[in-house]
Amino acid sequence: MADDLSELTAALRDFADRRDWHQFHTPKNLAMALAGEVGELVAELQWLTPEECTSLSDGARDRLALEAADVFIYLVRLADITGIDLLDAATRKMATNEVRFPH
Amino acid sequence: MADDLSELTAALRDFADRRDWHQFHTPKNLAMALAGEVGELVAELQWLTPEECTSLSDGARDRLALEAADVFIYLVRLADITGIDLLDAATRKMATNEVRFPH
Amino acid sequence: MADDLSELTAALRDFADRRDWHQFHTPKNLAMALAGEVGELVAELQWLTPEECTSLSDGARDRLALEAADVFIYLVRLADITGIDLLDAATRKMATNEVRFPH
Amino acid sequence: MADDLSELTAALRDFADRRDWHQFHTPKNLAMALAGEVGELVAELQWLTPEECTSLSDGARDRLALEAADVFIYLVRLADITGIDLLDAATRKMATNEVRFPH
Repeated sequence: MADDLSELTAALRDFADRRDWHQFHTPKNLAMALAGEVGELVAELQWLTPEECTSLSDGARDRLALEAADVFIYLVRLADITGIDLLDAATRKMATNEVRFPH
Repeated sequence: MADDLSELTAALRDFADRRDWHQFHTPKNLAMALAGEVGELVAELQWLTPEECTSLSDGARDRLALEAADVFIYLVRLADITGIDLLDAATRKMATNEVRFPH
Repeated sequence: MADDLSELTAALRDFADRRDWHQFHTPKNLAMALAGEVGELVAELQWLTPEECTSLSDGARDRLALEAADVFIYLVRLADITGIDLLDAATRKMATNEVRFPH
Repeated sequence: MADDLSELTAALRDFADRRDWHQFHTPKNLAMALAGEVGELVAELQWLTPEECTSLSDGARDRLALEAADVFIYLVRLADITGIDLLDAATRKMATNEVRFPH
């Protein structure tokens, strides 16, 4: 198992390398793939009631997990090829949000 | 800075706690927010040529990074409240893909 | 065949009525379904080159057409249940864009 | 006001023509723009309760209408440049759904 984000990033890059997928993994294509996978994730929940969503069956949670994995994978790939550090960007965004939404 | 995914997960949960946002952070709402943020990410690249996308200006990369951060943040929040381990799910998905796409 | 948008709107409403789908066709659910279908549409084009996209094979065009149909169907349903006139809204938006983007 | 779908299609084509936007209005770019606008539409509803969504204020309905208009506009543009007849495709899809979901 990938122990952390940088290990996952490296594993995904290696996965694409070995398949010669760099020609397909352009920023635009990966952004589209990300949108496609988010669509599949949303589709897992679209017809469920709010109550059903807060107590997902094991099967539903596992389907959602695999869609979330696809979103995560493409997000990490896109960040990797565009030189974005996701943890750093998220930390910066949280600092902005801390000011924007006082508690 | 959040050093890893579990630290980011905890920081985001705490951020929502302190603002009493749990009423809003339902699975359906967070899936919608994720779709919204992916839309913003895609919009950063939509009118650029493939060439412009592979050599982003610093400004364009930073805007993309902040949109990627928003996607990441909502993905992590959704995983947290639905009991999904993103690294485990991504690892399982990669194992499936290894078989599905032989190299 | 539905001859125009109002006929399609009525046919889709009738389709949902006969299946007692109004409980599912809430604004949030239909917005999610719309996002899901746009994800499928985007997925049809994501790995194609720009050149392949501008000269789609008959098969690819037909798959894209059926995904575009799903997007259209959910957009029309969402507009119907929220009391939105799509042609009127598009006309108003075009008037705004005419000013916003002088030629 | 555009009286029907073919009039809207022609008006949007003319709008793009006069701005020399054909270089930007490629199938991939328009699919991305569509995903971006659906993201904005979804964002209008994401934090509202199901109840708030079924009795939208006039302001909320109008904001939703303008986002729906953007989705509609890009869907119509994409269909136009790829040679897709949206009403025909939707009618075919409904015939399929009639069989797939018996009532």
